Amino acid sequence: MILVVCLNPALDVTHHVARVSWDGVNRPMAVRARPGGKGLNVARILRALPAQVQVIGMAGGLTGDAVRSGLAGAQVPAVFTDIARETRRTFAVVDSERHQTALFNEPGPQVSDGEYQRFRAQYQQALTGCAAVVLSGSLPPGLPGDCYAELAGLAAQAGLHALLDTDGPALAGGMAGRPAIIKPNLAELERAAGRELQDSGGPDLPAVVRAARELMSAGAQSVVVTLGADGLLAVTGDGVWLGTPGGRQTGNPTGAGDAVLAGLAAGMVLGRPWEALLAHAVALGTAAVAAPAAGEFSDADYQRELAEVSISRREDL
Amino acid sequence: MILVVCLNPALDVTHHVARVSWDGVNRPMAVRARPGGKGLNVARILRALPAQVQVIGMAGGLTGDAVRSGLAGAQVPAVFTDIARETRRTFAVVDSERHQTALFNEPGPQVSDGEYQRFRAQYQQALTGCAAVVLSGSLPPGLPGDCYAELAGLAAQAGLHALLDTDGPALAGGMAGRPAIIKPNLAELERAAGRELQDSGGPDLPAVVRAARELMSAGAQSVVVTLGADGLLAVTGDGVWLGTPGGRQTGNPTGAGDAVLAGLAAGMVLGRPWEALLAHAVALGTAAVAAPAAGEFSDADYQRELAEVSISRREDL
Repeated sequence: MILVVCLNPALDVTHHVARVSWDGVNRPMAVRARPGGKGLNVARILRALPAQVQVIGMAGGLTGDAVRSGLAGAQVPAVFTDIARETRRTFAVVDSERHQTALFNEPGPQVSDGEYQRFRAQYQQALTGCAAVVLSGSLPPGLPGDCYAELAGLAAQAGLHALLDTDGPALAGGMAGRPAIIKPNLAELERAAGRELQDSGGPDLPAVVRAARELMSAGAQSVVVTLGADGLLAVTGDGVWLGTPGGRQTGNPTGAGDAVLAGLAAGMVLGRPWEALLAHAVALGTAAVAAPAAGEFSDADYQRELAEVSISRREDL
Repeated sequence: MILVVCLNPALDVTHHVARVSWDGVNRPMAVRARPGGKGLNVARILRALPAQVQVIGMAGGLTGDAVRSGLAGAQVPAVFTDIARETRRTFAVVDSERHQTALFNEPGPQVSDGEYQRFRAQYQQALTGCAAVVLSGSLPPGLPGDCYAELAGLAAQAGLHALLDTDGPALAGGMAGRPAIIKPNLAELERAAGRELQDSGGPDLPAVVRAARELMSAGAQSVVVTLGADGLLAVTGDGVWLGTPGGRQTGNPTGAGDAVLAGLAAGMVLGRPWEALLAHAVALGTAAVAAPAAGEFSDADYQRELAEVSISRREDL
């Protein structure tokens, strides 16, 4: 069982409009509402693999109820600590003529200290019987900045690996919990390092490795950097690997990083060595790009990508 | 007690963004969610007058629950027949730098015949003890096009005046119920008449009167046409009146027509003659423009506008 922590879930509402009027009335052709947030994408991918998964988090109000009922409908087991404030929504407006998508992300509900303490007690209980912990997504307002460090530390005390995927202060504050893997994308790693790590030719791999090693000295045991269509770079205590997909995949990159994280978590639980672990993670991320929505993939795409992915050990980096 | 029928209520979500990126991620500065739809604006205005008001309608799903709880929070008494499908949302994106607002209106839930029959039974019960009925807003998919005619007819059988404010086929189909007043704006009257009723100088008043008389021969007992900043034109069996606000009001015109309708309903219940009825309606509509949100007005604005409004009988039209 992989425990997926989702502290700031959302109800994702998507409106498809032929051509958006930015100063007028639009009548969406299609409307979709479903639970969202990075952790929930990870959980859906894990469930589809299939791997045993349990979501744990905090949710409030009628939007929180909508997240709960959406997950129940998708047969993703989830336990949310009740909070007083309303869970956030995100709105996506897809302009199908201009091929543009505008995202509007609400900040999330203010969480009180007492609510977080109740969540933490539920989390500690849930650790029993789990094989790994995924900590994914933003923190709602009111949580301590080192919240992910505490949750990763509790996982370590229970003998479990924690995988962390977040951004900014939540990432910086989480490192002290010694997560087994952190999975920034290039922009997140740049923000964490405080400098650019790419040039016109793409990612500057030696610079990426140096930045990853800085995060390892801050506590992360390994760093897997997703590089978009270029695949991923894993910087670990056992060496550095570059994982590259077989071909260019066109589609919807939203949630591809969440699929990579799901692949890493599932592989760790299965005890896969780094090469196999990374191959599955790259293949899953690439298959997710081909799927219409975040948190989905087709098994045929996954198996085909798995046959084509290349993993190379890079002693030079 | 004024009964306000709201068959297609909505949860109105508004995001305020400094400058919208229509192809990127936006983080709204302010988020507001509250019950919406024209009928609910009318009910809020009536409640603030204050006049006794009762909302009746259909609502479903967790968005329906959010509408119910929002009205309860605003102390607007409401009874909604439960429907299986989810009540709609509307989503407004306010770009505060460009002064643009984009509206995204979901179509509303498909309503079954059985659900409508249950609503109709509740409506018939609610008519007892009421003084007037307001029928306002769009019809959700699945309702018969002559739905408003039936509801206005039932009100007439109970000895009550019905005021109708809707658009397109729902308006055309509602006329046969002989509503006491219909309240189109100029664009709605143009759609009902099937021709333009204005020129570069503004509304063509003789043409507006002719179009209103056509709707009266189709069943409406009187027609009050709102003309935006130009006020309103009332075409009745007793004569034609032009109502003009005292000064130009700047602000938010959304919901101004709903305030006019609330003023007409409240005035009918009080038995005001046309001149006084129209003066209050114009003043309330103008005061609503000055308020920050639809369904609101300040009593000071209302009283000031009431002293400045002019109502002239137009024998020439």
